Amino acid sequence: MKQDTVIFPPVKGFCLVVSAPSGTGKTSISKLLLETEPSITRSVSMTTRPPRSGETNGGDYHFTTPDRFRGLIKAGEFLEWAEVHGDLYGTPRTPIEQIVGDGRIALLVIDVKGGQSIKTIFPDAVLVFLLPPSLENLEQRLRNRGTEAGDVIEKRLNEALIELQCVSQYTYGIVNEEGRQQQTVDTIRAIIAAERCRISRWEKK
Amino acid sequence: MKQDTVIFPPVKGFCLVVSAPSGTGKTSISKLLLETEPSITRSVSMTTRPPRSGETNGGDYHFTTPDRFRGLIKAGEFLEWAEVHGDLYGTPRTPIEQIVGDGRIALLVIDVKGGQSIKTIFPDAVLVFLLPPSLENLEQRLRNRGTEAGDVIEKRLNEALIELQCVSQYTYGIVNEEGRQQQTVDTIRAIIAAERCRISRWEKK
Repeated sequence: MKQDTVIFPPVKGFCLVVSAPSGTGKTSISKLLLETEPSITRSVSMTTRPPRSGETNGGDYHFTTPDRFRGLIKAGEFLEWAEVHGDLYGTPRTPIEQIVGDGRIALLVIDVKGGQSIKTIFPDAVLVFLLPPSLENLEQRLRNRGTEAGDVIEKRLNEALIELQCVSQYTYGIVNEEGRQQQTVDTIRAIIAAERCRISRWEKK
Repeated sequence: MKQDTVIFPPVKGFCLVVSAPSGTGKTSISKLLLETEPSITRSVSMTTRPPRSGETNGGDYHFTTPDRFRGLIKAGEFLEWAEVHGDLYGTPRTPIEQIVGDGRIALLVIDVKGGQSIKTIFPDAVLVFLLPPSLENLEQRLRNRGTEAGDVIEKRLNEALIELQCVSQYTYGIVNEEGRQQQTVDTIRAIIAAERCRISRWEKK
């Protein structure tokens, strides 16, 4: 039987970077997103900081030693890495390349600097920035968490202001309002649906 | 009372161009889209061809005389215009500029050449191309319409092949499968939701 001449080819996989200042809710958004969007696989970062209570190795992070981490840096095994408050954090290269190569979406929840690195390595990456509704709301959320002292909150807020200045390097911006997380997730899913229709992502043209 | 420092500014309006070869179902898709997406206003084209049975003036087209049409061309009142089989068709400038200026979305169901003109005038326009699942399916759909003679179908099919070669000039491509029109409409709505989050569309940065 003669096969029909299909016009629409399969689309390539891509990286979905989600960045947000502390307190904007990126952790719970990415959890909800992974639960509802089967085409996404989360990239698990590697870190030298010790696990916090409840964190699992391979789930939240790949926990490792500074020596091994530095060895992987030398071997070119990180797409991007950074030292934050004396601890090393990095995005392993091989799993991301596998996810994207399989035509799937690799979710990277990383900071603005990491997002810029990913955009350089994967120019077709999709960069989403989550925004708090207002600066006052962000401060309130940081205070409500109650896990940090006053001067740490001040520090986080200053970091957030610096991160917000980088928003124009991102493609999409979504306001993550408290109590409306599902709406944020739906908007990210709409972005994914749109990006999968992008003609430049066709395997062959 | 001190106002909160809102980070997310309003987004600018834009043009949504939908193009598709004859028989791909763009007319019914755009009707469904207008029924479900209140942020869209359809741009009504102007033509010198006589109304067909059931067509209303101002609804389907603005019907006019060749003399008046040519006067409007001279006055620069068309964003794009073309002569097709001896009849003139054009997209009036003023209504589109009003829709976009109001922060809304102007829907233009036009051909590939028209789409290219709109992209030149409005570089931030969103261009969507509707594709038939296969060339054989397209031919079948054209034959099933039963409104055209065999040689006209042949002609439409050749035109479709030429139009399909222009697909790479479009941003998004969606396969419009028969009986799954709602899915096509949902995908266009996802594209609209994504495009409204595009940071380059913020009124101020």
